Amino acid sequence: MSVSDSAPLSESSSTLPTEGRRRVQVDAVAPEVDGGRFPVRREVGERLVVEASVFADGHDRVAAVLLHRPTGHRSWTETLMEPLGNDRWRADFSLDGLGRMEYTVLGWVDAFRTWAADLAQWIGAGVDVSLQLEEGARLVEAAVDRAEGDDAAQLEGWVERLRAWSTEPGLADDPSPLATDAGPLSGTLPSLMARYPDRSLSSRYDRILEVAVDRERARFSAWYEFFPRSTAGEAGGHGTFRDAQRMLPYIREMGFDVVYLPPIHPVGRVRRKGPNNRVDSAPGDPGSPWAIGAAEGGHTAIHPELGSLRDFLEFREEAETQGLEVALDVAFQCAPDHPWVKAHPEWFRHRPDGSIRHAENPPKKYEDIFPLDFESEDWPGLWKALHGVFTFWMDQGVRIFRVDNPHTKALPFWEWVIEELKEKDPGVILLSEAFTRPAMMYRLAKLGFTQSYTYFAWRNTRRELVEYMEELTTTEVREYFRPNFWPNTPDILTEALQVGGRPAFMARLVLAATLSSNYGIYGPAFELMEHRPREPGSEEYLDSEKYQFRQWELDRADSLHPFIARVNRIRRENPALQRNDTLHFHPLDNEKLLAWSKQDREGENRMVMVVNLDPHHTQSGWLELDHLVLGMDPEESYQVHDLLAGGRYLWEPGRNFVQLDPRISPAHIFRVTRRLRTEGDFEYY
Amino acid sequence: MSVSDSAPLSESSSTLPTEGRRRVQVDAVAPEVDGGRFPVRREVGERLVVEASVFADGHDRVAAVLLHRPTGHRSWTETLMEPLGNDRWRADFSLDGLGRMEYTVLGWVDAFRTWAADLAQWIGAGVDVSLQLEEGARLVEAAVDRAEGDDAAQLEGWVERLRAWSTEPGLADDPSPLATDAGPLSGTLPSLMARYPDRSLSSRYDRILEVAVDRERARFSAWYEFFPRSTAGEAGGHGTFRDAQRMLPYIREMGFDVVYLPPIHPVGRVRRKGPNNRVDSAPGDPGSPWAIGAAEGGHTAIHPELGSLRDFLEFREEAETQGLEVALDVAFQCAPDHPWVKAHPEWFRHRPDGSIRHAENPPKKYEDIFPLDFESEDWPGLWKALHGVFTFWMDQGVRIFRVDNPHTKALPFWEWVIEELKEKDPGVILLSEAFTRPAMMYRLAKLGFTQSYTYFAWRNTRRELVEYMEELTTTEVREYFRPNFWPNTPDILTEALQVGGRPAFMARLVLAATLSSNYGIYGPAFELMEHRPREPGSEEYLDSEKYQFRQWELDRADSLHPFIARVNRIRRENPALQRNDTLHFHPLDNEKLLAWSKQDREGENRMVMVVNLDPHHTQSGWLELDHLVLGMDPEESYQVHDLLAGGRYLWEPGRNFVQLDPRISPAHIFRVTRRLRTEGDFEYY
Repeated sequence: MSVSDSAPLSESSSTLPTEGRRRVQVDAVAPEVDGGRFPVRREVGERLVVEASVFADGHDRVAAVLLHRPTGHRSWTETLMEPLGNDRWRADFSLDGLGRMEYTVLGWVDAFRTWAADLAQWIGAGVDVSLQLEEGARLVEAAVDRAEGDDAAQLEGWVERLRAWSTEPGLADDPSPLATDAGPLSGTLPSLMARYPDRSLSSRYDRILEVAVDRERARFSAWYEFFPRSTAGEAGGHGTFRDAQRMLPYIREMGFDVVYLPPIHPVGRVRRKGPNNRVDSAPGDPGSPWAIGAAEGGHTAIHPELGSLRDFLEFREEAETQGLEVALDVAFQCAPDHPWVKAHPEWFRHRPDGSIRHAENPPKKYEDIFPLDFESEDWPGLWKALHGVFTFWMDQGVRIFRVDNPHTKALPFWEWVIEELKEKDPGVILLSEAFTRPAMMYRLAKLGFTQSYTYFAWRNTRRELVEYMEELTTTEVREYFRPNFWPNTPDILTEALQVGGRPAFMARLVLAATLSSNYGIYGPAFELMEHRPREPGSEEYLDSEKYQFRQWELDRADSLHPFIARVNRIRRENPALQRNDTLHFHPLDNEKLLAWSKQDREGENRMVMVVNLDPHHTQSGWLELDHLVLGMDPEESYQVHDLLAGGRYLWEPGRNFVQLDPRISPAHIFRVTRRLRTEGDFEYY
Repeated sequence: MSVSDSAPLSESSSTLPTEGRRRVQVDAVAPEVDGGRFPVRREVGERLVVEASVFADGHDRVAAVLLHRPTGHRSWTETLMEPLGNDRWRADFSLDGLGRMEYTVLGWVDAFRTWAADLAQWIGAGVDVSLQLEEGARLVEAAVDRAEGDDAAQLEGWVERLRAWSTEPGLADDPSPLATDAGPLSGTLPSLMARYPDRSLSSRYDRILEVAVDRERARFSAWYEFFPRSTAGEAGGHGTFRDAQRMLPYIREMGFDVVYLPPIHPVGRVRRKGPNNRVDSAPGDPGSPWAIGAAEGGHTAIHPELGSLRDFLEFREEAETQGLEVALDVAFQCAPDHPWVKAHPEWFRHRPDGSIRHAENPPKKYEDIFPLDFESEDWPGLWKALHGVFTFWMDQGVRIFRVDNPHTKALPFWEWVIEELKEKDPGVILLSEAFTRPAMMYRLAKLGFTQSYTYFAWRNTRRELVEYMEELTTTEVREYFRPNFWPNTPDILTEALQVGGRPAFMARLVLAATLSSNYGIYGPAFELMEHRPREPGSEEYLDSEKYQFRQWELDRADSLHPFIARVNRIRRENPALQRNDTLHFHPLDNEKLLAWSKQDREGENRMVMVVNLDPHHTQSGWLELDHLVLGMDPEESYQVHDLLAGGRYLWEPGRNFVQLDPRISPAHIFRVTRRLRTEGDFEYY
């Protein structure tokens, strides 16, 4: 049936509404972001669960359907909503394709169910229901016109039966025979009538909401960032894509699925930075890859020393063969010798002396970088050029971009360009590298970024981690913001990693990888536990790869490579860790220990993590697991299996003891299963 | 300036927006109800405080104004918003008139302030700022065109000065003289430039929000309900308006300001109910006033035994003379002999045998009541007739209505009719008597009801009261739902009052009158502590006035009349008690004691209430008052004066002891003042 003629619920106006009999109210539809201004975000294969308050005046029963359709389609698909009590209704629909879908809620007074419920009461009270039976006959008679095929005939039969009962003298004295299986309340009539409701006076929620559906990797991904130019090995000098290709098995073995490369474009020569961000460079210094553009080209060119476009494509193909997707860095800024500076001076801000204004944050100056001017008169030209950068690389098969500092570019541009890119490939993924204030970080996600960097790197204590995770997973933020947790980046060597040694690297990895379904590391610095800052108090790496080549001893005996591989394998094998929406923290009587659980959508895969936040001392305590959260019987004992260290424990209802020596393992990653009945039930990992 | 050309912030579309350079984002504007679908509610004389997140990309400074105007006006008034930090901005505007006002937020990049802040940094760093000075000159030059009168000439002077400085050789070496009072940063230039910002690329929040402004009584009122027909006194029989007039001084002395009368219309004779809701009545039984309508007339007629319309008007005028406003009961339902039943049978639902369907909630039947059918084909006629009932009584000078069971009438009707009535008199007040599920109660408030009955009658324990008050005063509910707390009504004699004796009546009164700025009692039953239920387990009064006359011994020695008078006087004299938005509960280590505070908008009048919820035993405990909530110095001691019982105490920082013997007084109502310095500083009450 068509519902397009359903007017909004009610109208404020000094004249009568066109139709005043739409008695049902639809209120508080969830999820909804900013009153429907932005879509909620989900992934293919998930179901969108929608709730609404649906009610009418009086004691009449109401019914409701969830309406949904791909955005742009005219006709709605309907899913009947189930009552949850207290006027709240719920339904869901599956997100089978990429792109956007619309949804809203429609409700109406269900005259037949109201009649049936009343009739049951009257029969129970033993009163004469002959008039009620005739009223029922009329309701069914009206439904005959709406019914199709055989149903119409069946309904006609019911009309006759109801009329016959209504005049049957014996029933007037004792209506109880009507309550039997053959009666109007429990036979085929209710289901028949449910198929043909009278929805002429239905009310629709006054807004149409949207869900943006991304591919699964938007929710579940493990990123590995490295500098291809540092892969020359013992030969030294500038590594190439061919050298970098040799890294791929090493990365694959660790279990990552996204390989993210810092900018691969020609590096500016003008005012090039030297090692450790020195103002001037010596011949042979490679400069910062984020100083993009030189005579050889700009954002769509390949740095000649890395190789050719063909070399890049080979690298990308080889990565894909190994199950790794390549993500490129998009940094919209230019070195002074970027071709755009000459070709499009109007895209930059000029100073009174005619020079182009370089980046600055007074009193700091960044002379090797020219920012783009989003207030340029030719902003349309600039937008199209930037759009062209994305599409160029998409045409080379790249579908994931890490966007550098999006919060320093005009936000209307992002909303426009992301929409455009999704038109081209709805599977495109953009990671927002904004480390700034919350309103901006969240707004970028609302405007379309698929994933976002976070404050995780600076959340170390239990209270900090719990508060932050609850903000991300229990507030409206969860509907649109997908966190991607990085324990380190080329810009961020946290104090925790500088001083905490191996246990800190292990703990921070487990936290990132199991608190958040999206995470990443900057390697090989991470697995080789690089921890020397440029100077005390700095978060910059000493001898940072941002400004020089590094040679990494990948096969070092103490490398975290096997540990990371194990964590990533646990993530892949346990769907509970592939989502954040079931995250729950559990009480533990030692502030240095953090305990939380996650489970998959079906509640079949249940994981409990415990991390020792103190890298220096063994910590122990009593964990009170909330069985109900995990959908388990609170009276039953159960088996927990530490997939990280290998131990198995039988846990009793109530409190259980945990202890973690950081020198051995700073974390447990438990899979929780029902108590084994015999030794044969043991599951082996 | 005109802002009507400000397009929404940004647009999703596959074509470029008309203007892509509106870099400022406006997000999270508060207050906002349901994405702007409903207005927030406030009262005349208040200020509406509006907050928004306003920010732009990069490090540029932004500025924002709150735009506001009476709904229907074209031009906006602007109030500059103040930054609160973390991208949050705030401003307020005064609500000077009744009716609706619109508001929204406009932001822009403030190029001059950005320039000035940068310049200060450069000067501090001691670098050559000649180019910056020329850039500033250009910004000021552009502002000359926007400036008016003398300001333009002043700005031109600044352009010259900036240019002179920019070429002054000494300043290139040492810019510090520019940081003096005569320089561009601290002289008249910043305030001049603030007056003429370049707002050509401003962004406006994508919605226009509304505030509905009611008169003060919407927020602060004390209601007294009584049955005029029970005022015949020793004469017995049917009291008249003239008899009822004699009650007015008694009510005024108690300090109420609204006198609310149950329906005053002719009472149906057909199937009239007898005492204690007996199915049949004896001759002389007055019937229920809610069975409205008989041969003498319906909803616009006066019950002849009460008197004439002229008598009613005299009653209303005398009440007003005494400072009491009369509220009428609007119960849209009909006795079988209501004139509409014959004149407009189409406004009722008919059964198959042609009879009109009476009210029922199976298995209960209410044969003396015909509900109106809001699905009538002639719903426009019905709506207009009901609208006419309100306007008839408004024409008789009535401005307050208590609406009986609005949740059993179609909600689109309420939204329409309340809007209509406010057109006629924006000071009209409607109290919603809906005791039903939360979604419906809140929706009625959103749709326009000024005040609402609540679950207060059934909230007795500390936890129940705290949870409910926090829902009402700290969630979005506070923006549109004004609670009116009733410890009793003719329909509700709670178990707490049945068994708790005098202390329960006193405690429930203090709770109602000081937790909520709107409250009411049904008297004289309340002050005379009537507590006998019709039968055990029932909340109905025995010998309820709903079905029979009662004679009340108003001058009984144990009447709560003086106690209520004192509580109402405290409410009138302490503005803190005339609002709910500052309510805060304070820790007290005895669950039987509830402690909370309120203060006025200026924070000058501070009240602390403590109530013993146990009517049978003395309870004591340690109260930890949160001084910061009350805007007081946490290190200082202070004076508290119990306005109810008269005691004065000097309280120390930290915990203070409280004890309440319910037989003496179950409550403290403290006014908190700074510690007195000498005996001369004592304030006397």
